[in-house]
Amino acid sequence: MESDLFTVETGSRLVTDVTDVVAAFCDGRGDGLCHVFAPHATAGLALMELGSGSEQDLQDMVERLVPRDDRYRHRHGSCGHGADHLLPVLVQPSIVLPVLDGRLQLGTWQSVVIVDSNVDNTERQLRCSWLVGS
Amino acid sequence: MESDLFTVETGSRLVTDVTDVVAAFCDGRGDGLCHVFAPHATAGLALMELGSGSEQDLQDMVERLVPRDDRYRHRHGSCGHGADHLLPVLVQPSIVLPVLDGRLQLGTWQSVVIVDSNVDNTERQLRCSWLVGS
Amino acid sequence: MESDLFTVETGSRLVTDVTDVVAAFCDGRGDGLCHVFAPHATAGLALMELGSGSEQDLQDMVERLVPRDDRYRHRHGSCGHGADHLLPVLVQPSIVLPVLDGRLQLGTWQSVVIVDSNVDNTERQLRCSWLVGS
Repeated sequence: MESDLFTVETGSRLVTDVTDVVAAFCDGRGDGLCHVFAPHATAGLALMELGSGSEQDLQDMVERLVPRDDRYRHRHGSCGHGADHLLPVLVQPSIVLPVLDGRLQLGTWQSVVIVDSNVDNTERQLRCSWLVGS
Repeated sequence: MESDLFTVETGSRLVTDVTDVVAAFCDGRGDGLCHVFAPHATAGLALMELGSGSEQDLQDMVERLVPRDDRYRHRHGSCGHGADHLLPVLVQPSIVLPVLDGRLQLGTWQSVVIVDSNVDNTERQLRCSWLVGS
Repeated sequence: MESDLFTVETGSRLVTDVTDVVAAFCDGRGDGLCHVFAPHATAGLALMELGSGSEQDLQDMVERLVPRDDRYRHRHGSCGHGADHLLPVLVQPSIVLPVLDGRLQLGTWQSVVIVDSNVDNTERQLRCSWLVGS
């Protein structure tokens, strides 16, 4: 199976655009499906519009749904780190994307992003795997 | 790859049943997996029971988790449209379904639905792609 | 397609570890993707760290997001059962996992779990299907 592991600089951002990484992996491959996977317990993958304010809106929503405070049993690292471990239950770290003629068939406003509220990790890995359709 | 794009009338409903569209795409194809994808920044895909009140319960839950008010940075169109852009982060617009002998292997109470809180779009596209298992 | 249906004892737990079931299904299969699917309207699948308190944190989060009270239209069985039907909209019951040389390529802290708040069902089914990559 054609499957590559990429290292992505996520800094302390909640949202990191990886559309280019995934698009480059698919480039030249023809028709099929691209599986994107984040092998981390505090990262998820999503499709969203970028550059119109939704990154900050998402930050606010995450703070509402899983507040970074001292309520969690899972506690080590930064205060509120337990919240980081709940987010991937809501934002699955596995997604399949359609590809035609080597190009991602995303909607106009869809970008592929890593969602990671864990500010203690500034690099994440991303595994892309290729499936030929039939 | 056998991959078709369907246009679905979603009206102003939060939940639109697309089980028949997906089932018809799979019909006659044998064993494999069906990938269903919504190429939109404000739509997600889910499996849920229909006709027993959960559609309205989901509406209420969405209003609790991402209220349609003026809190969002992402603002254009209807008031609260920023919320529409957060929902697909929680309800992924990509799902893979098992198929045996051309028939979706869903549970008794599972229907395939588009979840879209964006009342300004009354039509959505759905891409179904086929993968033969092995 | 190599696709097997397993019966898993979930008791009245919210979180049930099924990593071993999925790993055993993949064992010996080489490189590919494993599709895991729960054919139930009240169950989801997730990847999370186990044994560090996140199970109880998740229980608390679920109670916050979809409280088990009498607010739901969907009402039969235990009080709050309507909540069970909303959880899989947030926690999709379908996930694809990468496999190399017959081994799941999960992160160090990722376990595969069934998330099911429905205390009235103590057994759940899990369908694993195999896709050879290319």
